[in-house]
Amino acid sequence: MSVSLPSVFAKPRVFAPVVTPFTAGLDVDAPRFVAFCQWLVGQGAGLALFGTNSEANSLSLAERHALLDHVLEAGIDPAQMLPGTGACALPDAIALTRHATEAGCAGALMLPPFFYKGVSDDGLFAYYSDVIQAVGSDQLRVLLYHIPQFTGVPITHALIERLIAVYPHTVVGIKDSSGDWANTAAMLEKFPGFAVFPASEALLGKALPLGAAGCISATANIQPRAIASLLNAVTLEERAEWEGKVATVRLAVQAQPMIPALKSIVAHFAKDSSWTRVRAPLTPMNPAQSGALLQQLQALDFSMPSMASLAAVAA
Amino acid sequence: MSVSLPSVFAKPRVFAPVVTPFTAGLDVDAPRFVAFCQWLVGQGAGLALFGTNSEANSLSLAERHALLDHVLEAGIDPAQMLPGTGACALPDAIALTRHATEAGCAGALMLPPFFYKGVSDDGLFAYYSDVIQAVGSDQLRVLLYHIPQFTGVPITHALIERLIAVYPHTVVGIKDSSGDWANTAAMLEKFPGFAVFPASEALLGKALPLGAAGCISATANIQPRAIASLLNAVTLEERAEWEGKVATVRLAVQAQPMIPALKSIVAHFAKDSSWTRVRAPLTPMNPAQSGALLQQLQALDFSMPSMASLAAVAA
Repeated sequence: MSVSLPSVFAKPRVFAPVVTPFTAGLDVDAPRFVAFCQWLVGQGAGLALFGTNSEANSLSLAERHALLDHVLEAGIDPAQMLPGTGACALPDAIALTRHATEAGCAGALMLPPFFYKGVSDDGLFAYYSDVIQAVGSDQLRVLLYHIPQFTGVPITHALIERLIAVYPHTVVGIKDSSGDWANTAAMLEKFPGFAVFPASEALLGKALPLGAAGCISATANIQPRAIASLLNAVTLEERAEWEGKVATVRLAVQAQPMIPALKSIVAHFAKDSSWTRVRAPLTPMNPAQSGALLQQLQALDFSMPSMASLAAVAA
Repeated sequence: MSVSLPSVFAKPRVFAPVVTPFTAGLDVDAPRFVAFCQWLVGQGAGLALFGTNSEANSLSLAERHALLDHVLEAGIDPAQMLPGTGACALPDAIALTRHATEAGCAGALMLPPFFYKGVSDDGLFAYYSDVIQAVGSDQLRVLLYHIPQFTGVPITHALIERLIAVYPHTVVGIKDSSGDWANTAAMLEKFPGFAVFPASEALLGKALPLGAAGCISATANIQPRAIASLLNAVTLEERAEWEGKVATVRLAVQAQPMIPALKSIVAHFAKDSSWTRVRAPLTPMNPAQSGALLQQLQALDFSMPSMASLAAVAA
């Protein structure tokens, strides 16, 4: 297989599915979002805007469109971005994917339509194909998004094979959020050159030797530098040390409801309680829960450095 | 419990989750949709526009908004309508519910947000509460929508109790698409006066004696008159006869992928093949499949009468 990968994929990279802040009225808070994106890039992470951990499906089409524009207007390099553009409704997926492509984003991370269950590979192929043809751009790079525990709609290997066969230049990778290592390993073996991103830094130790493209991980929101250090480690000893560090932090966080936990942590280190807000159906952590989590992280010597610019937005 | 039910609920009613036609370019086909809505109302059905069988989640917000306007402009009585207005994104659910309420629709049939799984009743209560408060209208009537096989997000009895306690005037009913008769029966017993709609006419024989509000059923798209006759039956013998008729048709159709099957049947009787189109991730029936289904229905003496107006739209 020969695909043309954007330069951002030239070596293994960490991308953060950027958590989305809300105002007191639960509107999207663009200034805080932009400041956080800038912090993440400064810490060595790429931006998987509008991911699961971004509450992307809790945002309207207009909100997603406007928020990407805000980030672009702030001067953040679109070559660092893999916005989520999948949607249940084909016109929404087309509009979001077109916008991301025209903006020069490195790629579009596309959920399958996730309302109907038991849909066929024919139907999913038609969905991806309809989007690719409607966008009709040589610049488009699609990453598939396999997260069956939320979508109920798995991306099968047979579907990947069909998509690569017809769109070798466009369908260039996948995020595997299944947590099923056997699936990740099988894709790495079956589809050489295809950019396979596990959804957890804890899998990098096994995935990198098999050619993984890096990771797109929830906890990249809070430990981007550490994951980048793991990816950039020169010696095996160095890599093992970073693996241990990032794994313990991840374990502590993933024992909690992920999104409220990430937001509580960002709120704490940005000294800005507005970060704790979530949209229904999610609920924020209560102070006892977040206090316990933060104590646990403190015991691990964890902190998020250099957040003065975020505190400044709050002031 | 004392709730104020719109007059359309005064006696058990059948509502059709109206199937949505598409043009050759897969845009929403408003003239065909309006003609079909008119036919359904003429056959005695209410209109549960934008339901699961309407491919509602495959339509954009703008398409749903415009399509409801088309139906209203055609002069169809909004008191006959229960449009689906639930969505993953709170702003979408608010916009759709507000539009339906301002249009004078009898009620809004609201899916829970269905991307995240394992969400709490607190989070779901917040979602419905946020929509009700944002719409802020005495005219709003919400019907909850329990379809866990697609959403992965069940509507629990504890949630219903909380919503009724806080919004007794607004949260007036539920569509139970689970197919779990024990659940339907338990709600009918626990929540007297609450409008409980099973999703299948096949359950009416058991549900009507317990106080069911009628049904909102996929196959009401093709046999509205027969289901209305069942609901209006005066004698038990008459009811039993209609029950048998509608049940055999339903059995034949539900053995197939429901939405493509319904559309193939409408296409056949409207003499208009454009009705067979679906949006990805659904796929249309192939001619062999639809031919076999139509033969089966013919053997049951099934037909859709009085469709000249639909054929006229096609001409």
